[in-house]
Amino acid sequence: MRCPAAATPTTGVTEAPSPGLREQVARLLVVRGSGHLSDGQRRYPRWELPNGELQDLLAAGVGGVILLGGSAAELRLRTEQLSGWARHPLLLCADVEEGVGQRFEGATWLVPPLALGRLFASAPEQALLLAGRYGRCTARQARALGLNWLLAPVCDVNNNRANPVINVRAWGEDPATAGALAAAFVAAAQAEGVLCCAKHFPGHGDTLVDSHLALPVLPHDRQRLEAIELPPFRAAIAAGVGAVMTAHLQLSDLDPERPATLSARVLEGLLRVDLGFGGLVVTDALVMEAIAARWGAGEAAVLAFEAGADLLLMPADAHTAIDALVAALSSGRISLARLTQSLRRRDAALARLRPPASAADNPMAARPLLQLAHAVAQLETAEDLELSRELVQLSTGSQGPSGLPPGPGVNLIRVDSALANPFLPVLAPALQRPLGKGYAPVLIDGRAPSPWRADPEAPLAIERLPQGPVLLQLFVRGNPFRGSAGGEENWAAVLRQLLAASRLAGLAVYGSPYLWETLQPLLPPDLPAGLSLAQIPLAQAQLLEQLGLPRSALEGGFTD
Amino acid sequence: MRCPAAATPTTGVTEAPSPGLREQVARLLVVRGSGHLSDGQRRYPRWELPNGELQDLLAAGVGGVILLGGSAAELRLRTEQLSGWARHPLLLCADVEEGVGQRFEGATWLVPPLALGRLFASAPEQALLLAGRYGRCTARQARALGLNWLLAPVCDVNNNRANPVINVRAWGEDPATAGALAAAFVAAAQAEGVLCCAKHFPGHGDTLVDSHLALPVLPHDRQRLEAIELPPFRAAIAAGVGAVMTAHLQLSDLDPERPATLSARVLEGLLRVDLGFGGLVVTDALVMEAIAARWGAGEAAVLAFEAGADLLLMPADAHTAIDALVAALSSGRISLARLTQSLRRRDAALARLRPPASAADNPMAARPLLQLAHAVAQLETAEDLELSRELVQLSTGSQGPSGLPPGPGVNLIRVDSALANPFLPVLAPALQRPLGKGYAPVLIDGRAPSPWRADPEAPLAIERLPQGPVLLQLFVRGNPFRGSAGGEENWAAVLRQLLAASRLAGLAVYGSPYLWETLQPLLPPDLPAGLSLAQIPLAQAQLLEQLGLPRSALEGGFTD
Repeated sequence: MRCPAAATPTTGVTEAPSPGLREQVARLLVVRGSGHLSDGQRRYPRWELPNGELQDLLAAGVGGVILLGGSAAELRLRTEQLSGWARHPLLLCADVEEGVGQRFEGATWLVPPLALGRLFASAPEQALLLAGRYGRCTARQARALGLNWLLAPVCDVNNNRANPVINVRAWGEDPATAGALAAAFVAAAQAEGVLCCAKHFPGHGDTLVDSHLALPVLPHDRQRLEAIELPPFRAAIAAGVGAVMTAHLQLSDLDPERPATLSARVLEGLLRVDLGFGGLVVTDALVMEAIAARWGAGEAAVLAFEAGADLLLMPADAHTAIDALVAALSSGRISLARLTQSLRRRDAALARLRPPASAADNPMAARPLLQLAHAVAQLETAEDLELSRELVQLSTGSQGPSGLPPGPGVNLIRVDSALANPFLPVLAPALQRPLGKGYAPVLIDGRAPSPWRADPEAPLAIERLPQGPVLLQLFVRGNPFRGSAGGEENWAAVLRQLLAASRLAGLAVYGSPYLWETLQPLLPPDLPAGLSLAQIPLAQAQLLEQLGLPRSALEGGFTD
Repeated sequence: MRCPAAATPTTGVTEAPSPGLREQVARLLVVRGSGHLSDGQRRYPRWELPNGELQDLLAAGVGGVILLGGSAAELRLRTEQLSGWARHPLLLCADVEEGVGQRFEGATWLVPPLALGRLFASAPEQALLLAGRYGRCTARQARALGLNWLLAPVCDVNNNRANPVINVRAWGEDPATAGALAAAFVAAAQAEGVLCCAKHFPGHGDTLVDSHLALPVLPHDRQRLEAIELPPFRAAIAAGVGAVMTAHLQLSDLDPERPATLSARVLEGLLRVDLGFGGLVVTDALVMEAIAARWGAGEAAVLAFEAGADLLLMPADAHTAIDALVAALSSGRISLARLTQSLRRRDAALARLRPPASAADNPMAARPLLQLAHAVAQLETAEDLELSRELVQLSTGSQGPSGLPPGPGVNLIRVDSALANPFLPVLAPALQRPLGKGYAPVLIDGRAPSPWRADPEAPLAIERLPQGPVLLQLFVRGNPFRGSAGGEENWAAVLRQLLAASRLAGLAVYGSPYLWETLQPLLPPDLPAGLSLAQIPLAQAQLLEQLGLPRSALEGGFTD
């Protein structure tokens, strides 16, 4: 199915671009910037535009920026700076799926949504209330810092436990749970005056491939989609969600040629017509390999827009995308009416926003910087802290008696990357509490010397560890760009090996409930062990408390 | 020798503390806070006071705060916040010995001072000019962010290459060099309207013990001090340095009973009388083990003040220190005249400051936050970047041809701690450039699985590394709290081992010139190898460029 408007071009091929066309096209773009203020602070300069380029693009009319990195204070100033460079209202967004603190240090970082998905089975009312508080906390803090668009909630149903990219980011493992909680999140967050974004349409929960790295292909037909993937999106739309983000995956049955992001059958046919969504459709990042490698910066943008997207997130090159769209509109390949339609949807979305609080920026205020400092210092309210604690408590569970054998022992910790680990500062509970008991840390990550040996039944090079009992702490969850959910390491074999050697003192799993469910049956009932769905320091403290490791004098990295 | 004023008490033991005495005493204290705005962001909550306590102490009259951590933007707001909590002018300081960026992300992080000390031997004029630019850059950025007191320059002469705590922080390895460069730094920095602080009196360069961990004892007599340790302090005093910081070390010959920080013979006798210093004397952190463990929070503060210190840095407990000082003044153990003297010196120091720039906080400015955002984004000027580059270039040297054998190979990196490594973001040149050539990173730190085996002649467990040529990158310098300058690892033996196995492809040493001077003679002349005194990403890029590793597409973490 084609976009109806595209069938009736209103401009001829020879007509010059009307004045302002370039700027109107630029409004459709959402480019990526660092949350830091200066170019030198950018962590990913290949993807985060430098200030000079951002300034030019915003002056040329670019309509949105997705931000990543920096602290709450920097973000507040950054959003002010970006708005100052634009002469028009901006959409300022971030992937704050687990609270603003997930991306911007100093704000609240909540537990992964799946914790509430799990709670929903036994206590649906409590889970719904908490999902609402989750949305309010995130939206209020985002808005206080100048963001007006949450790229959340994830509406994917995590029915595939090996999913490398969705996993605990989902609100549920079944459609009803995911839909009910996502809708509660949307209603509460949008009531705070920001937009939300249901993602990744039509559903990324049942994939084994990370679309950041390659294009996943799914065979699901329409009937299957109706049963599993679509209900959470229907629920979010019914709750009034302002935007829907497309998925970079191919649904062979719906459109054998194009991934969902570029497919009119999916965006126009399924999302607009069948699901009746009238809000903003935004692509996932067009720079992602699954799209950019095959279509290039310009054609990917044109195809996505042609297919029904309103906003184009992170085109591989902004200027190329604008050029290609202007050409497509000038040539009549896409109608100007189609452009007007998207711009109107964007205006309508902006009109729904509550204007940002301006007390801190009130020129009449005697000391605006002092006010801002206090506002940032008090960003995390007592209510937010209470929500954090409640969520951590209900997403943590343990078995066995409390208490580890006295050290010296080994605190064997598995992380994705020791170099980029916001939840593992040097004074984190996961390091300090075992140390207080004489358990010295040994950190395994992808860059450490190999801890493995050739024996698949006993894969850990146990002879190279220090002597004594071993506390095993596994930080494993599905994370984008990792390529797997941590499943390539055989922790079950390691557990059997440590048990056989009478060396296993305890087990803590942070993140994947699936890993815990694989390992827990292997444990003797009298072994202190547990799971927390969250990896943040507060969750470490909670789980280790349950395992009998009391607060250490040095401990830091979180408030209590 | 006792403080003369202390010999003539002016208050009797029964007299009640005069009104305001507590507040006057509080002025003497410099307490520690995080540079972050909210309590939850503190990295070291055991030492960094929470906001509630800071607010109380400042309201009670505490006169200074030492700040650590956070970004430039946060620091600007933080200094505003702290000043807002006090009803009096504050001394706001930080250990920005190597540029403000050493402590506050987003500002300029310069190469270690010893780089200029080394340059001084061949090009003294150039070195002096650069030391001046170094001081100006640091002072200007500090002042722009609300600091008014640089805890720099280090005036210790690093004549002991195994010094675990001074090392490349020193401006020279001989007294004349250290003195000339420290004086140039002081003159230029103070001309920008901030105070400097010469440290650590009477000289910490010839120690093998880290005073953060234990009290170093030195046998040097006065004659030896005059020859080696004192000249840089004399030079800094002649340059008008506003403050001198005491060292936590014991000079048995001068005072067999008390460490320098608590010794009237050292502070009054040597520093005030003999060196004629009339500015502020500040203790090093009283919380450091060498002091706190033996004397306790109250008595340490009283002894230091009694000995001649004006300001008391980081007492182990601020309230206890104030109580003890009030008691000592009330009982006549210390005279009120002595208090008045210190407060006058403090007032005189404050009077020398240029008031902070207030454009960004001008209530008449239409958009103060926008102005602040721009000011922070432009904190690092073109001149600062040029200085950075010049300094990196002259502190980097290499031997051998340019170019490594093609990978797959091993990029074996030694760091103090992978978890707290501001110079090694994931996209740092030291990781990305070798990766571009097929060299996979293996990171050795104190928490990684051991890379060692029992053979002292061939200590590296080479059989556990991936196959291929090895690029060895050693980030080693004297760092406080590490307990050594990295000398416990036998890198000479590792080099011989890799050479014998024909596996050594290249060597990069970042930090200690002493380590390089030990290793370099072992290298074949045709092996690409080099030293940079700096560890920052810009230095990595410079050295690896010289070793034939071109810029990687992914590379980040610094501006170029």
